[in-house]
Amino acid sequence: MTFARPLAELIGQLERLPGVGPKSAQRLAYHVLRMPEEDVQRLAKALVDAKQSLRLCDACQNVSASETCEICADPRRDPRTICVVAEPRDIAALERVNQYRGVYHVLHGLLSPMDGIGPEQLKVRELLQRAASGVDEVILATNPTVEGDATALYLAGLIKPLGPRVSRLAHGMPVGGELDYADSATLLSALEYRREM
Amino acid sequence: MTFARPLAELIGQLERLPGVGPKSAQRLAYHVLRMPEEDVQRLAKALVDAKQSLRLCDACQNVSASETCEICADPRRDPRTICVVAEPRDIAALERVNQYRGVYHVLHGLLSPMDGIGPEQLKVRELLQRAASGVDEVILATNPTVEGDATALYLAGLIKPLGPRVSRLAHGMPVGGELDYADSATLLSALEYRREM
Repeated sequence: MTFARPLAELIGQLERLPGVGPKSAQRLAYHVLRMPEEDVQRLAKALVDAKQSLRLCDACQNVSASETCEICADPRRDPRTICVVAEPRDIAALERVNQYRGVYHVLHGLLSPMDGIGPEQLKVRELLQRAASGVDEVILATNPTVEGDATALYLAGLIKPLGPRVSRLAHGMPVGGELDYADSATLLSALEYRREM
Repeated sequence: MTFARPLAELIGQLERLPGVGPKSAQRLAYHVLRMPEEDVQRLAKALVDAKQSLRLCDACQNVSASETCEICADPRRDPRTICVVAEPRDIAALERVNQYRGVYHVLHGLLSPMDGIGPEQLKVRELLQRAASGVDEVILATNPTVEGDATALYLAGLIKPLGPRVSRLAHGMPVGGELDYADSATLLSALEYRREM
């Protein structure tokens, strides 16, 4: 099938996005043709605007429209507690809980020697600088995966000598989960970290 | 979570696309921030270009960059056989077979009285004009669904008096399918339309 050239070009560009296969790219492209032109213009502008106007927060390395992100600039947040996450999107997940009042630090990845990702490829130097300047606690909130655990272990070793307490998110049964469906590593953690009632 | 404003705007625009939920919109938006700026510009341009430069083929109503689409303009295609489909994307599926040498007609939808879609909302008038001007055969290739069958039945009744033969895609077992997994409506069709060997 030869698509009309501008359509083929659009499908090709959409296919390059993560999670968008040839089929969804076609479906999206035909949807765009049915959208009002002003909506297409708005989407195109949002893409370019986001790319051009966003940068990383000087303090926490989160995506930000200004030098200091909204969380770091918020006087109600406690700058003496730093929660370390792998990706900016992890902040969204933690903020949804609406309980954490400290600040964040985004590593922009996890250690992965196989992929050539060492501490220099991550925002580790920036984290150590912050940790050395009067921080009470560093919470390592990387995912409980091999890379996430290895990164947390590595960071804990570097941060503890600088002064702050270092903690890690608890492992255990997800709330609402069923024992029957839990994997044994999770169950083992849930047993180890059991709490007195 | 308050995302930086240009990021929130991009996520909001992406969420409006079909099949893109809040989660995928976030993932896509963060991906855009990691893309080289020229790639983002190219995607934005492809969106606007496709919307602005594409129109419907005067003959078959397929999406086209010019008055007459590539298929209708191709002298090797037989304009006396018209295959009627619901959507432009159905043409891509049929062209992949690489056997059909006639032309197409896109209805841009199916009859659906519940949704207020009658013949006036579809490209039916255009189809009848074509069918009345010396066409040998009209193949009704709408999906084998309630709406697709009803639309095919309705069109067959209008087209037959105009002269052309009218046919419908065969129902039956999908090639490579297993009897065990076939629904009974499909099996019934496969029995009814059985062919002598």
